[in-house]
Amino acid sequence: MNVILDLCIVPIGVGVSLSPYVAACEKVLAEARLKMVLHANGTNIEGEWDKVFAAVKRCHEVVHEMGAQRISTFIHLGTRTDRNQTMDDKIRSVEAKLAGL
Amino acid sequence: MNVILDLCIVPIGVGVSLSPYVAACEKVLAEARLKMVLHANGTNIEGEWDKVFAAVKRCHEVVHEMGAQRISTFIHLGTRTDRNQTMDDKIRSVEAKLAGL
Amino acid sequence: MNVILDLCIVPIGVGVSLSPYVAACEKVLAEARLKMVLHANGTNIEGEWDKVFAAVKRCHEVVHEMGAQRISTFIHLGTRTDRNQTMDDKIRSVEAKLAGL
Amino acid sequence: MNVILDLCIVPIGVGVSLSPYVAACEKVLAEARLKMVLHANGTNIEGEWDKVFAAVKRCHEVVHEMGAQRISTFIHLGTRTDRNQTMDDKIRSVEAKLAGL
Repeated sequence: MNVILDLCIVPIGVGVSLSPYVAACEKVLAEARLKMVLHANGTNIEGEWDKVFAAVKRCHEVVHEMGAQRISTFIHLGTRTDRNQTMDDKIRSVEAKLAGL
Repeated sequence: MNVILDLCIVPIGVGVSLSPYVAACEKVLAEARLKMVLHANGTNIEGEWDKVFAAVKRCHEVVHEMGAQRISTFIHLGTRTDRNQTMDDKIRSVEAKLAGL
Repeated sequence: MNVILDLCIVPIGVGVSLSPYVAACEKVLAEARLKMVLHANGTNIEGEWDKVFAAVKRCHEVVHEMGAQRISTFIHLGTRTDRNQTMDDKIRSVEAKLAGL
Repeated sequence: MNVILDLCIVPIGVGVSLSPYVAACEKVLAEARLKMVLHANGTNIEGEWDKVFAAVKRCHEVVHEMGAQRISTFIHLGTRTDRNQTMDDKIRSVEAKLAGL
């Protein structure tokens, strides 16, 4: 089962500058060889369910190891069985409709 | 690693009545013997990371098997290494502070 | 337009104990006379759109005034035009289906 | 108060193809002259609180008018008082840290 997932990890108790933790998670995801796109509010990830969630767990472990005692994470994910759809497909589909409005 | 997780599964393409799908997920979570509390916008779950996410994956499989071709799911989860904290602890902690305001 | 909304406000940069901030938000919501239910991962709120979102904004103002320089907030909300539905209705609907499984 | 917000609107009961509804919301946001970036799981928006939330409300109204009787929406938003930060700043900040890993 493939999944398209938006991941936003918020380390708590480490001050207001969170980019070092987000960068460490980007590194985890890249090392897991997942297709990923960073955006202003999270990271979009595409891949096989188990592989994706193993990487999400590893992100939590790494951020805790970096010193964050508490983490609040938000995930939005989609699965579908009617057809294969990539992250690029989703964006192109909206842009095509938008062009017709 | 223990996790407290809020799960909201939205089946897409099966009409506006979603309660049969939510009920099926509640059954999956109960069978996994996870501590869980249904609320108006999702289900709070408490347990060990791998066990919780195995159940989340099973929910997706079951909802697809029930006929939903597409699912959009929202998860909010917290982990902490400074202390053990249950779902009840979290609510009691806020209520204690609220009593003092 | 009525809305059922799940609100989770995460103050950043104020340490790992967030309950004083959550309690302050509960007070804001109560003073706005909104129907609300605290749960382990947020607060469910029911009310008219503008009234609910004015209270959400006031929560951000109050948490900033308490000293949090950064806030990350997660909201899940639902609106429907086919029928009136309360938070209690949503829970009862799932429980009724669950009883039949 | 400025806000950076991630908006994901899920129309329910209108089948599995949601791009026409997402495109209609993009149009609403563009007409509100908000800075916005479409991504695979939502739309990032940057602007003044009241202006942003007025546009979010208008999106709900438009999607209901298009025939969706039920909508489930997920919002992630951030505010900060320590400094001004744009969506581009957030991404650049992570990329700078990533370059140093």
